[in-house]
Amino acid sequence: MAADFRILAQDAGSQARAGVLTVAHGEIRTPAFVPLATKGSVRGLTPQEVRDLGFDMVLGNTFHLHLDPGDDLIARQGGLHRFMRWDGPIITDSGGFQVFSMGHGTVADEIKGRAPNGPSRSGRVLSIEEDGVRYRGYTDGRERFMAPETSMEIQGNLASDIALVFDECTPFHVSREYTARSTERTHRWLDRCLTWHDEHGPEGQIVYGIVQGGVYEDLRIESAQAVAASACDGIAIGGSLGAEKAQMYEVVRWTTEVLPAHKPRHLLGIGEIDDLVAGIGHGIDTFDCAMPTRLGRHGMALIPDPDRRWRVDITAGALKDSDEPLMEGCPCPACAIGWSRGYLRYMAKNRELTAMRMLTVHNLAFVQRTVARLRDAIISGTFDRAAAEILAGVAP
Amino acid sequence: MAADFRILAQDAGSQARAGVLTVAHGEIRTPAFVPLATKGSVRGLTPQEVRDLGFDMVLGNTFHLHLDPGDDLIARQGGLHRFMRWDGPIITDSGGFQVFSMGHGTVADEIKGRAPNGPSRSGRVLSIEEDGVRYRGYTDGRERFMAPETSMEIQGNLASDIALVFDECTPFHVSREYTARSTERTHRWLDRCLTWHDEHGPEGQIVYGIVQGGVYEDLRIESAQAVAASACDGIAIGGSLGAEKAQMYEVVRWTTEVLPAHKPRHLLGIGEIDDLVAGIGHGIDTFDCAMPTRLGRHGMALIPDPDRRWRVDITAGALKDSDEPLMEGCPCPACAIGWSRGYLRYMAKNRELTAMRMLTVHNLAFVQRTVARLRDAIISGTFDRAAAEILAGVAP
Repeated sequence: MAADFRILAQDAGSQARAGVLTVAHGEIRTPAFVPLATKGSVRGLTPQEVRDLGFDMVLGNTFHLHLDPGDDLIARQGGLHRFMRWDGPIITDSGGFQVFSMGHGTVADEIKGRAPNGPSRSGRVLSIEEDGVRYRGYTDGRERFMAPETSMEIQGNLASDIALVFDECTPFHVSREYTARSTERTHRWLDRCLTWHDEHGPEGQIVYGIVQGGVYEDLRIESAQAVAASACDGIAIGGSLGAEKAQMYEVVRWTTEVLPAHKPRHLLGIGEIDDLVAGIGHGIDTFDCAMPTRLGRHGMALIPDPDRRWRVDITAGALKDSDEPLMEGCPCPACAIGWSRGYLRYMAKNRELTAMRMLTVHNLAFVQRTVARLRDAIISGTFDRAAAEILAGVAP
Repeated sequence: MAADFRILAQDAGSQARAGVLTVAHGEIRTPAFVPLATKGSVRGLTPQEVRDLGFDMVLGNTFHLHLDPGDDLIARQGGLHRFMRWDGPIITDSGGFQVFSMGHGTVADEIKGRAPNGPSRSGRVLSIEEDGVRYRGYTDGRERFMAPETSMEIQGNLASDIALVFDECTPFHVSREYTARSTERTHRWLDRCLTWHDEHGPEGQIVYGIVQGGVYEDLRIESAQAVAASACDGIAIGGSLGAEKAQMYEVVRWTTEVLPAHKPRHLLGIGEIDDLVAGIGHGIDTFDCAMPTRLGRHGMALIPDPDRRWRVDITAGALKDSDEPLMEGCPCPACAIGWSRGYLRYMAKNRELTAMRMLTVHNLAFVQRTVARLRDAIISGTFDRAAAEILAGVAP
């Protein structure tokens, strides 16, 4: 089956399009940013607050929720929507990225340009086999096995609106040969996922395939064609997108150019402000990224300043006495309170809950306004101008 | 000067009274619970959320705010109200409790029945002199001196509505002789605080004296009379209130029986549900306590169950699969979301921000409903019945 995806407007000068994706729990206005509800919450916020910020969908984490509290427990409580009391659409990743991040150790670094996360320290991949991945879970050290069918079963238990197929997320440093072999196996896993889902998948859940192929144009194109030819409802782009942004955008372009227009496209784990502009320009419909929420918890705020990568470190000593607002003229609920940068600096430095929470709110609101503005611009035929303005540092 | 304190109703069968205390930033309906905004926020909440829960006043911490970010910085930003964007009444403690908690090491334990807190580990009292206290701050290890005048100056910089005089907070384990000498010094410090405040205190700030005297009836009565005879606007009860609740209530009773009716009375650091009932019955007007907020951050929720000290540990393994609500029929904003105990258990166990925040909301709402119900009962002449019901576990 195909997803219920209506394209409302197609930009004339780029691949950008605006649409409405309808899934079991409602509509997602695209392009859309999807906040992470990794472990059953958008950290610090209530479901209603996420909705009030304008988000239609959140992303749940298959791997983490499987290990704790367990997808079986969540199923007994009526599925992830009821468990977390979010009644809108949910997309779940397949767990591939998290499993393989543990194994390669530096995959997460390579792909995301950051320090290894918790799981990579305490969990471990024991072997990657044709059938699936043997690994040690970080919660209890127990040996576990995740096959494509396991991932789909977990996502069935979570009862998300959109499930992602299980893939091997190849890092940047591996050879072309490894990438090619891995991508082929990912395609076989795609078929197994779709077969399992046909028989056992929950009512109303749709499935996205995942394009791999590393930074190699021919492999990306082959992979995009293989995924597009499958019975999947939508298409996600995963894996290593290159060492720098220009290469990332090229990889995305190679992929979307050969994808059919009518299937929705998700770009996995990408969501910096300039990446959103470029991704939307290359025809991406949905994005997920830890950036706005993680930055908020670490005392960083998004501001319309491309020269500083759209961010300011609120914990910086220079802001100690600042009586300026977090962001002049910002309409978000956090800025509406009127706190000075000096107050937020003091609070964020001490990791006070209120600061972490309200910086998260500010950052999510900033990203949401950015994407909403680009969507409006696509519909009104002014995408080029809106994109240029955002990249020039005009506040969304 | 006397505080603007109107007593609206006096219970016939107890010392309980209901009133309205008007200070520079507005009215406090008494009896009232005062949530802790120790370091410039009620942790996890915005000022508006605290207001929406029904609280009229918050308590800022003189000692912590002096060390970080500094009361001079807060003064440059327009005072604590503007700094934290709370436009209602603020009471600031004097810093005495925190300074002396560092010194005696186990003072906090003795008084509060809990493990020593952060400051007691890294800060240190170097000497207690007639002039004040020499100590090492926990933020920078620098030697500092706090005299009664210093405390009042800090509270002047914070520009709270109600300042507390600097006192020595005597612990439970010291001798009667030490308690007597310390209490006399606290009275001399009271005079110095009032003298300083007369000349230098900010416009509109009122001052509460503090009754000490440990667990000795004659010392408590002497202290209450000394404080009552001073020019202070209100009276706080501090120090060791005994080893168990019966003794605590007795100490409070000795004190309030000799206090003049027209001055508002604050009970420092006390606020368990049964303590609120007893304290109000003994004529206390305002209470502050870390209990509801600290419990929330540690995964504990208040419930109407006296046999379990009105609390449930939401992180308990037994709740793993619970589909029950946090508290049946609870009208608070956290319970309105509808999360199961199983969900909250999972979230609280992982110290997820949303859980810590919403348990804090639930606990504060529970305490506020308890106090509001007792207040209404005093006014309608049914205090006895309301008190008995709450102590019997009827939900407020």
